Amino acid sequence: MTYDLVVIGAGPGGFDCAAEAAGHGLSVALVEKDFLGGTCLNRGCIPTKLWLGATSAIEELHNQAKMKVASGEIIVDFEALQQRVRKHLAGTRKAMAMQLKGLGIELVEGFGKLDDGKVVVSGNEGETVLEYRNLVIATGSKPIFFPGLEPDGQCVLDSNQFLAMEAMPKSLIVVGAGFIGLEMAQVAHRFGARITVVDAMDRVAPLEDPEVSKALQSMFKRWKWDIQLEKRVSGVRTVDGRAVLTFDTRDTLEADTILVAVGRGPVTENMGLEEAGIELEFNKIKVDENLQAAPNVYAIGDVNGRIQLAHAAAHQAWYAASHIAGKTDGPYASGPVPSVLYGAPEVMRVGKTENESFLDDYDTTEVSRAQLAANPMAQAHAATQGFVKVVWSGGKVVGVTGVGHDVSRLVTPATMIVQQGWTGDDVHKTMFAHPSLDESLLMALKAERKKVE
Amino acid sequence: MTYDLVVIGAGPGGFDCAAEAAGHGLSVALVEKDFLGGTCLNRGCIPTKLWLGATSAIEELHNQAKMKVASGEIIVDFEALQQRVRKHLAGTRKAMAMQLKGLGIELVEGFGKLDDGKVVVSGNEGETVLEYRNLVIATGSKPIFFPGLEPDGQCVLDSNQFLAMEAMPKSLIVVGAGFIGLEMAQVAHRFGARITVVDAMDRVAPLEDPEVSKALQSMFKRWKWDIQLEKRVSGVRTVDGRAVLTFDTRDTLEADTILVAVGRGPVTENMGLEEAGIELEFNKIKVDENLQAAPNVYAIGDVNGRIQLAHAAAHQAWYAASHIAGKTDGPYASGPVPSVLYGAPEVMRVGKTENESFLDDYDTTEVSRAQLAANPMAQAHAATQGFVKVVWSGGKVVGVTGVGHDVSRLVTPATMIVQQGWTGDDVHKTMFAHPSLDESLLMALKAERKKVE
Repeated sequence: MTYDLVVIGAGPGGFDCAAEAAGHGLSVALVEKDFLGGTCLNRGCIPTKLWLGATSAIEELHNQAKMKVASGEIIVDFEALQQRVRKHLAGTRKAMAMQLKGLGIELVEGFGKLDDGKVVVSGNEGETVLEYRNLVIATGSKPIFFPGLEPDGQCVLDSNQFLAMEAMPKSLIVVGAGFIGLEMAQVAHRFGARITVVDAMDRVAPLEDPEVSKALQSMFKRWKWDIQLEKRVSGVRTVDGRAVLTFDTRDTLEADTILVAVGRGPVTENMGLEEAGIELEFNKIKVDENLQAAPNVYAIGDVNGRIQLAHAAAHQAWYAASHIAGKTDGPYASGPVPSVLYGAPEVMRVGKTENESFLDDYDTTEVSRAQLAANPMAQAHAATQGFVKVVWSGGKVVGVTGVGHDVSRLVTPATMIVQQGWTGDDVHKTMFAHPSLDESLLMALKAERKKVE
Repeated sequence: MTYDLVVIGAGPGGFDCAAEAAGHGLSVALVEKDFLGGTCLNRGCIPTKLWLGATSAIEELHNQAKMKVASGEIIVDFEALQQRVRKHLAGTRKAMAMQLKGLGIELVEGFGKLDDGKVVVSGNEGETVLEYRNLVIATGSKPIFFPGLEPDGQCVLDSNQFLAMEAMPKSLIVVGAGFIGLEMAQVAHRFGARITVVDAMDRVAPLEDPEVSKALQSMFKRWKWDIQLEKRVSGVRTVDGRAVLTFDTRDTLEADTILVAVGRGPVTENMGLEEAGIELEFNKIKVDENLQAAPNVYAIGDVNGRIQLAHAAAHQAWYAASHIAGKTDGPYASGPVPSVLYGAPEVMRVGKTENESFLDDYDTTEVSRAQLAANPMAQAHAATQGFVKVVWSGGKVVGVTGVGHDVSRLVTPATMIVQQGWTGDDVHKTMFAHPSLDESLLMALKAERKKVE
C-alpha cells in the first residue's frame, strides 16, 4: 500500500505529527530506529525532570534551613531513582505504542533511508519498503562535540550517558553552561557533588539576557560552584579512573566525571537526503515557509535547525499534519516560543530579549522589571533572588524573561501576552490571583519603563 | 484641608486605592484602625503562604518516599516559623508605610466613623476630623460564627487566633471545609496533627465543582483525615484544656484545638453608615455599577459582599481610583476572577463551573478534561491525582477548574483564556512549554468535549 504519510522519527515532533495526521483520517506509518518518544522522553527533558522532581525537597529544605525555620536530612537513593526513571519511560513508551495502535498507525522499527521516492527501513527483521504520498522527517538531534571534547563513556560523558549513570559522581565538571548542562549540574549539586562549570563564553546561559546570566552566576556562586568562564578546553579524557580536563593553557582540572554539553546537532547522516534532492546546510535540513524540504517532504523539529525545543517540534508537527490534510494553507507561524530552565532557580524567556529588541528598534525599546524579593510566594519559599523583566517596543510587550524561584510558571501567560502584544492599558484587564508568583509578572508589567540606550 | 480622597481601611483594597489615587495626583488620607495590609497580610493569605512554603518540603519528601526514591526527616520549628512570620509581616508593613510616605499619603491611625459628611477618626491620641471630596470604604471582613460556634480563644479558635498560636496542636478539628479551613488543616497535617474536618454540607470545598470536592476528599482520606460531612454542630467549647465539639445528635469529638472557619462577614458596625444614607444588606454595603454606595462614596472589597478575595479588592481599588480621578467612566467590570487553594493538592478555578454554565445554557454546555496522571511534571513530583476540566458554552471556554499538584500555575493562563472566550481554533495559537504542568490545561482544552446533560 501507499501511505498518505510516512514519518521518520518518533520523538515529540514525529509522534505528534503521526497522531495528528491519523486524527485527520490519513493512513500513517511511523518509523523509529530506537525508542518511541525520542530524545525528549528517553534521554532529555523527561528524565531530567524526574531527577529534579525527586530532589526538589532538598532545595526547599535547604532554603528553609538557611532561615533557621527547618532542619533535617533528605536522602535520595539514586539507584532507586534511576529504576523509577526507567520504569516511567518504559510505561510512557507502552502508552504511546497503545495510542499508535488505537489510531491505526503502523509502527515500523528500524533505520529509515530515502530511496527512489520510497522509505527503506532496515530493522532487525530485514528491510521494509514504505511508499508514501507525503513524508515528514523528524529525526531530531544528538549531542555534538568539538575536536578533543568527545566523550569516552568512562569518566567523560555526553548527556545521554550522564542520564544513564548508575551512581552520581561526588565531583562533576560540566563543559558547556547552557540549559542542558546547568539542569544536570543542579541535580548533581543536590546530590552533594562539587560542581565546576566551564564555558568559552563570558557568562553562563549565554543565549539568555546578560542580567539573567549574572543572577544565575550569583546564585551558583552562593552554592560554592566553581565557574570558569572564557576558558578554552583543549581536551577531556579518563586517566586512571578520573576525568581530566585540559585547558589550552595546559592547566588541568580533575573530577569524578566530566559532562560535555556543548550543543546538539541535527541527525541527517546516511539517510539519502541529498540524493533525494533535499538541501542540507550545516547538517540541517533546509525548509521553506511551509516546513517543506522538497515537494511533499517536510522536515520538522530539531532536524530543521529552527529551534531545539520539544514543544516547537510538536507545534510544527501540528502544522505539517494540518497542511498535509489540507486543513491549512498559510505559511507556518510559530508565534512566540517559550523556553524554560527548570530547577531552583528557574529561567523563563519568551519573545525578544532587551538586546534583540534594541537591535530591531533602537528608538522605542523600553524595559520594566520587578524583583522577586517583593513577592510573597518567593518569600514563603525563602528564595527571593531573581527578577522578571518585560521588554517593550512601540509601546507593546515584545518579550519577557525571568530568573528565580518558580518563574517557569510565568511562561504561559507571558507567551500569551507577547503573542497578543499587550499595551500598558491591557494590564488591568486580567486579574492576577493574590498572592501568587504570577504577580511578579504583573508587577513587572506595571513598573516604570526605562528606555534602552 | 479637604482631601480629594479619604479611604477607610488599609487592606489590599484600601491601600491599593490610596496608592493608585495618589499616583493620579489626588490628595489622599488613609484611615486604619489596626495594621497596614489588613486581613490578607496580617491574618490571612500571607501568613498561611509562609506556613505552606516552610512546610512544602515535607509534602515533597513524603511523595518521593512513597515511591521509595527518598527517605529522611524534616523538622519545622513552629516557634521559629512564627517568629519569621511576625518579622516578615512587620517588614512588609514598614515597606508599605514607606510607600505611603513616598506617595504623600496621610496615614491616620484609628477607627473611622462617618459623621455629617466627614470622617471622624478616633485614635490613641484623640479625634481627627477628615474632610473629603470622595470617600472609599474598604473595611474588609472578619470571621463570623453561628450561635454556639463562637471561639473562646482557649482551645476553640477562629482563623486569626489560629494564625497567632504558639504551638501547633497534635490533633485538630476544623469546622468548615472551605478554602481557609482546608489550607490551615493541610499545614497542621504537615506538622503531624491528626485532622478531623466537619461540615454541614455533603462535600468539602462546597463552592467548587463537585468533582473537585470528590478528588480532594479522596486525597485527604489517603492521609487518614476523618471527614465528617452533613453534620450539624451544636456547640464547641473548651473543657479541662481540651476542645470539645458537640453535634446536634449529642455525639462529641475531642481534640487539642478546634478551628472554626465557617465564613467571613463584612465589617460595617458602628461606622454611622446608615445614618449617612448608605444602604446595608446582610451587613454588606450595597453598591451600584460604579461601586458607589452614595454620591462620591465607594465601597470596595469584602465589605461590598461581591467576592471575598484580596485580588478582587485590589482590582476594584484600581477602578475606584480611576473613576474618582476621572480616568474611567464606564461601569466596573471585573472580568473573570481567579481563585486558588494553595498547598498540595491545590485547587484553581476561574469563570463558570459546569453546573453554573448548565444553568445558564443547557443547550450547548460541554466539558473536556485531562488527568494529571498523564502529565510528566505531576509524575516527576509523584503527585498524579487530580485533573483539569474546561467548561465550554456556545463553543467558547467559559470556565476552567483543576485540582492536584501545582495546578495554581494554570490560573493566570486560564483567566486569560476565559476572558478571551477561546474557541477550539485558538488552542493552537499559543505554544505551551514542554514539559510543563501547564500542558495539562492544553490537554484539557484539546480533549474531546462531552455535552453536559
